[in-house]
Amino acid sequence: MSTSRFAVNVLPKDGILDPQGRAVERSLSHLGIEGVADVRVGRRVELTVEAADEVAARVVVERLAAELLSNPLIERFAVEALAGASSLTGAAR
Amino acid sequence: MSTSRFAVNVLPKDGILDPQGRAVERSLSHLGIEGVADVRVGRRVELTVEAADEVAARVVVERLAAELLSNPLIERFAVEALAGASSLTGAAR
Repeated sequence: MSTSRFAVNVLPKDGILDPQGRAVERSLSHLGIEGVADVRVGRRVELTVEAADEVAARVVVERLAAELLSNPLIERFAVEALAGASSLTGAAR
Repeated sequence: MSTSRFAVNVLPKDGILDPQGRAVERSLSHLGIEGVADVRVGRRVELTVEAADEVAARVVVERLAAELLSNPLIERFAVEALAGASSLTGAAR
């Protein structure tokens, strides 16, 4: 058995309205931040999968991403294999 | 001037309750998916920054992540430089 940690990144498809992204853009001037554009806000889900091997684990993650974590009509996703327990471990703050 | 695309990944800190992660875990058996554990649900924000150089751009992103995109009491973030327009471009579906 292989145990692997994955991340699923879900973002609104190009051309789909992103109200959260617009809200972030509108807040930038209040913070005095300039030069930021094209903000897209989505989800990131990290999970551990135990399966026969790495290939079988990725099949599980792809299915989960397509059926539960994203709405295929308006969102697209990408699966990312993580080296450690979490992608943020090294940059914890 | 340099124009770069970044992603900010925001996740609940270890030990912080993650109701969305629990909800995903509870849904797995309905989908007939086994072997998935430790689900953490967070946000992913992608943005374009125009700044004097790559270092200055990253400073802007770090400030945005700390002051607007995350709640430092309960969340941690990591900044990721993206090669193209979006990390999901290559895996669009």
